[in-house]
Amino acid sequence: MTNKKRFIAVIGGSQCSAEEAKLAEEVGHELARQDVILICGGLGGVMAAACKGASSQGGTTIGILPGDRRQSANPYVQIPIATNLGEARNVIVIKSAQAVIAIGGSYGTLSEIGHALRSDIPVIGLNTWSLSRNGQPDTSIIPAQNPAEAVRKALSLATK
Amino acid sequence: MTNKKRFIAVIGGSQCSAEEAKLAEEVGHELARQDVILICGGLGGVMAAACKGASSQGGTTIGILPGDRRQSANPYVQIPIATNLGEARNVIVIKSAQAVIAIGGSYGTLSEIGHALRSDIPVIGLNTWSLSRNGQPDTSIIPAQNPAEAVRKALSLATK
Amino acid sequence: MTNKKRFIAVIGGSQCSAEEAKLAEEVGHELARQDVILICGGLGGVMAAACKGASSQGGTTIGILPGDRRQSANPYVQIPIATNLGEARNVIVIKSAQAVIAIGGSYGTLSEIGHALRSDIPVIGLNTWSLSRNGQPDTSIIPAQNPAEAVRKALSLATK
Amino acid sequence: MTNKKRFIAVIGGSQCSAEEAKLAEEVGHELARQDVILICGGLGGVMAAACKGASSQGGTTIGILPGDRRQSANPYVQIPIATNLGEARNVIVIKSAQAVIAIGGSYGTLSEIGHALRSDIPVIGLNTWSLSRNGQPDTSIIPAQNPAEAVRKALSLATK
Repeated sequence: MTNKKRFIAVIGGSQCSAEEAKLAEEVGHELARQDVILICGGLGGVMAAACKGASSQGGTTIGILPGDRRQSANPYVQIPIATNLGEARNVIVIKSAQAVIAIGGSYGTLSEIGHALRSDIPVIGLNTWSLSRNGQPDTSIIPAQNPAEAVRKALSLATK
Repeated sequence: MTNKKRFIAVIGGSQCSAEEAKLAEEVGHELARQDVILICGGLGGVMAAACKGASSQGGTTIGILPGDRRQSANPYVQIPIATNLGEARNVIVIKSAQAVIAIGGSYGTLSEIGHALRSDIPVIGLNTWSLSRNGQPDTSIIPAQNPAEAVRKALSLATK
Repeated sequence: MTNKKRFIAVIGGSQCSAEEAKLAEEVGHELARQDVILICGGLGGVMAAACKGASSQGGTTIGILPGDRRQSANPYVQIPIATNLGEARNVIVIKSAQAVIAIGGSYGTLSEIGHALRSDIPVIGLNTWSLSRNGQPDTSIIPAQNPAEAVRKALSLATK
Repeated sequence: MTNKKRFIAVIGGSQCSAEEAKLAEEVGHELARQDVILICGGLGGVMAAACKGASSQGGTTIGILPGDRRQSANPYVQIPIATNLGEARNVIVIKSAQAVIAIGGSYGTLSEIGHALRSDIPVIGLNTWSLSRNGQPDTSIIPAQNPAEAVRKALSLATK
């Protein structure tokens, strides 16, 4: 049954650099190879690249969309969910995942990192935000050197 | 690709009569036979019965949950989405569907019917609410006599 | 302190008849005279008329807006809350009130009635929806003959 | 009319240090003196301290609550809004404000900073998060040395 499958979120900007897209595509590719369902915000940039990578391996992709039209999903989303909640949909992407892989550094991604850490959902980072508070580094975002390591770390921490 | 598939929502109470459960299970069964993805609120009663019917035919089932735990989904949900939005998640069930089949008559179902009709998403009713305003009947809920007719009508109206 | 004050929601269409607007304005007028804070969806039609009535008596008006711009509130809203949640904001209007007065019959209003009844929040109706299920009338919506009666009934039931 | 008034959000943890509480109380105090409406998440810690400070000067305080009970607001909230949306209510706190003052460093606060920066709503920081991405500092959070400076900067940037 699919409900025994693992769900990992990939978060990142709806616009991204070529390097970030390459990282995202490889993450998606690796998630599908591991039989993991990919959940994301359903739009372009990092999200589309990750879905493309997963789809190329026959993986399942879910897009939690900010708008109210299923058709606004990127073409690699198989399960489009139309929330019409705008950025509040970020919380759903996070809450539905057992771990999160953050790629790159948009402000929407930062909000998702905050929601994940607040909910004790592990966050693995690839070229993403670094945090400090009151001058002290916060090491909650677990760094990965490459997509394979990001997926490996996410799966090892996806215990819920 | 799955994103070319049709999505139909089945709505109804988390507690229901044996007759409603039977209707829901047959609706789920028929949706799966027609290769339609079933979306619902992910809990018990009508929702669980519909998912059970769909699963028995190898169909895909999505549960948009009010809570923040994927594990709160009924055992026939393959794609659990944890929203933590409470009843506001009803809007997502509706917005993600091309048509809605309402079974029985809880107040949560009534709220979903209102959201669907406001968004011009067709509602097919099986033993559900009837509406009138200022003493005039409102015939927006399209009645069906049985599950097969409900599915047939839903698919014929699922144009978006 | 204001937090000891009572909160009553007025719900109804963003477009309405002249008769509905008159009812709404009188409801708002009476709520303000009773020192009740009026909460609504913040837009036009019934919402604007009720806020206008309350404002004319120095009452406080809160608008829970579907969009993300405070400026989209009608001119009689003193406290605009920008949710950007679309129709999901209906749930907030209901949850923040101790009782609800429904005027007229749009589908958005129907969704709010469903949400209120599901949460055991009393609904008083003025020229609004009537409900039946499986052919049996549902009498949960408490009818009122005029605005003063609607406010009186709402306040007597606003126990939470 | 109140709707000409300015709205500033104060964000911070529901638990906080004595120093953070003191900063928050002074921010609330100063906002009220400037006739600004304070909006926050309605709970304890930084939120309660800010509301306490505003209330002591006769200011108006709004609490956008995560739960569905108005009574869960801290005692200094005059306008409790019960969303039942959990952490997704953070978006509403941000969207309803013209500028945001962040005090201290919880993860919920981090999510709100992300939502604000994404929506081009200015963020003033007092002892809060510092951000960098890919090793480059991000200076979007505008530092303030004390509560009076935080309020002054927030008001000067609250142009929307």
